Amino acid sequence: MFEKYFSERIKNTPSSFIREILKVTQNSEIISFAGGLPNPISFPQEALKVSMNRIADKYGAKIYQYSTTMGLDSLRQYIVDRYKRIWGMNITIDNVIITTGSQQALDLLGKIFINEGDNVMVEKPSYLGLLQSFCMFRANFVQTKLNDDGLDLEDLKNTLKTYKPKAAYLIPNFQNPTGLTYTQENRKKVFDLIKDEDMILIQDDPYGELRFEDGERIPYIGMNESEKNVYLGSFSKIVTPGMRLGYIIANKEIIKMAETAKQASDLHSNIFGQYLISDYLYNNDLDAHIAKIKKLYKSQAAAMVKSMEDNFPKEIKFTHPKGGMFTWVTLKEGSDVLKLFDKAIAKKVAFVPGHPFYVKPDKVNTLRLNYTNADEKTIETGIKRLAEALGEI
Amino acid sequence: MFEKYFSERIKNTPSSFIREILKVTQNSEIISFAGGLPNPISFPQEALKVSMNRIADKYGAKIYQYSTTMGLDSLRQYIVDRYKRIWGMNITIDNVIITTGSQQALDLLGKIFINEGDNVMVEKPSYLGLLQSFCMFRANFVQTKLNDDGLDLEDLKNTLKTYKPKAAYLIPNFQNPTGLTYTQENRKKVFDLIKDEDMILIQDDPYGELRFEDGERIPYIGMNESEKNVYLGSFSKIVTPGMRLGYIIANKEIIKMAETAKQASDLHSNIFGQYLISDYLYNNDLDAHIAKIKKLYKSQAAAMVKSMEDNFPKEIKFTHPKGGMFTWVTLKEGSDVLKLFDKAIAKKVAFVPGHPFYVKPDKVNTLRLNYTNADEKTIETGIKRLAEALGEI
Repeated sequence: MFEKYFSERIKNTPSSFIREILKVTQNSEIISFAGGLPNPISFPQEALKVSMNRIADKYGAKIYQYSTTMGLDSLRQYIVDRYKRIWGMNITIDNVIITTGSQQALDLLGKIFINEGDNVMVEKPSYLGLLQSFCMFRANFVQTKLNDDGLDLEDLKNTLKTYKPKAAYLIPNFQNPTGLTYTQENRKKVFDLIKDEDMILIQDDPYGELRFEDGERIPYIGMNESEKNVYLGSFSKIVTPGMRLGYIIANKEIIKMAETAKQASDLHSNIFGQYLISDYLYNNDLDAHIAKIKKLYKSQAAAMVKSMEDNFPKEIKFTHPKGGMFTWVTLKEGSDVLKLFDKAIAKKVAFVPGHPFYVKPDKVNTLRLNYTNADEKTIETGIKRLAEALGEI
Repeated sequence: MFEKYFSERIKNTPSSFIREILKVTQNSEIISFAGGLPNPISFPQEALKVSMNRIADKYGAKIYQYSTTMGLDSLRQYIVDRYKRIWGMNITIDNVIITTGSQQALDLLGKIFINEGDNVMVEKPSYLGLLQSFCMFRANFVQTKLNDDGLDLEDLKNTLKTYKPKAAYLIPNFQNPTGLTYTQENRKKVFDLIKDEDMILIQDDPYGELRFEDGERIPYIGMNESEKNVYLGSFSKIVTPGMRLGYIIANKEIIKMAETAKQASDLHSNIFGQYLISDYLYNNDLDAHIAKIKKLYKSQAAAMVKSMEDNFPKEIKFTHPKGGMFTWVTLKEGSDVLKLFDKAIAKKVAFVPGHPFYVKPDKVNTLRLNYTNADEKTIETGIKRLAEALGEI
């Protein structure tokens, strides 16, 4: 009955496929590889309980009062110090704004950059949360092919030439949904192609810290070389997602605009959570904590890959993630993943069909599997069920 | 340098006047009546500390994990029960979505209802956070005069006839910025005029619980009589604003759309805060707590009114609030409130000039004063300083 009142924007925005699937799979015997949930045993519960009592005693009413839109200074300073140490970035807290999860960072960037019909380049496939978010601002998405080593350079050239995108959104580390990571070489070539374009480059990086093997981190595309670079980060995958705390790092002029957009969006992110996470970070060894999470996810990823190797038909392809939370499965050419989905649900295993990661999803034969929210034994059982379903399509 | 990249929307959205003023007045000797902060002594700190330890022990990892977009069921149920008890509303939790403060409720409603150029009716003056928020969606605001007893009915008739607004945004109780409350009679007449219009009526009510005198509450406009009514509420003024928790109550179809918009905006509001506030509400007497806040604010409001009566020139008018957090001062016709603002800052007292509450602020001779965040003695000192400043313009 409200059809005539709703905006064009909302009528054109799909409800999140994944969150609809999550509803189906909640409270049932279904083994779900559909979500993107961190393993709850990775949350530093004891340390957080110590921190919450400490901030209550130390700061009193401040942890409950209205606060600044930019976010808590000490938390922003922690981010500055970490990015300076790891990446040598020349930034201050004026380059950092705290957001209500990375999802809000996308909303704010959409608000400040996107006019209706603006071309935005994304990977093919891309993160559905970005597609949903920028859809609100009626962006025109252009998808550029993603290969095992990063963006397809020919496709990138064509995209730049044909569409002159105003912004690009990339996830260079352990991409969602594919689990793929751009090589250092690919990043350099991508930057060579885009550096003279009139284009804002947004690099989202919720998973970069979750690299299974120790060793050198690969710098961001054009890192420390472009004022048009915007970096997103999050505490969701390395401390806790429940507090909804992420951040944007960018040129001060961009951050200032994001601040205005955030005033209009939620005034500020919950200040209790900011005090809590800040206290946790300054009083604990984040790297030691991340090391534990990586060890856990590495074995879970290995269990999933091995189980797929052992049970899937040979013609089924899948990525071998070196970090992050997902693997991406490609069925035989012409297979219908929605048919597989129905068979899989009947066998009590769930995944995300590839559709929501494409701008124009017609014949889709891909799917995303998450391995972080189930133990190795459950992963094996679930993959066996999925293999059985594969045999029936 | 980024001018060419920014969206039209953000270039047309003013940064919040008030939050800019708050920056000026922070960490100084200025007595500030500019903010809208609850008195921090009203936060139930001890009870919240008990609750946070209880939820940590009781729910473990759940208070840190991703959660549902609609919000925590127990918190939504509390809201349902309260509105049923107080107002006899026939609602279930499907009519309620938790938002990241009331400000996000405005953002979500803008997202789902407003196309560029849609006419939206607001009070004159109106809440600046709404003006800022809907400005993002390029609404065309129409301001309808607000009198001591509610909306000006002739002006309302003209507005409806001339502009046929798609939505109206009203604050019927202890309005921000004026402190005015619509009488029961005015509400009935307003509803008679609007009930057959194709218009969504949004009633924002952050202050309704803060009625200084006990006695009968006045029902919302068209309460329980219109499916086109949307109600907003918040825990910011009665428990704590720092958690950023508010809610929308509306027809299920509207809530469903708001859910999609929220998925794209921040996935969900911080779940720790939702468990915390829910636990607090079920284990404490909210009405007893609100009674304490009301007693405090009543005496602070009385101190401000008395001090203005004693010190202001007779030609200065101001509202006598019966609840809420603000009083609204009108200077002599032709006075320039910005001139007063400069004089006041020089005398170390701050307020919000009327400008941000108007859609077209030219010659403004009004200002907003907040009385909830200073003790009676400080209020007296601040009003005396303001009276001195008044003598100099």
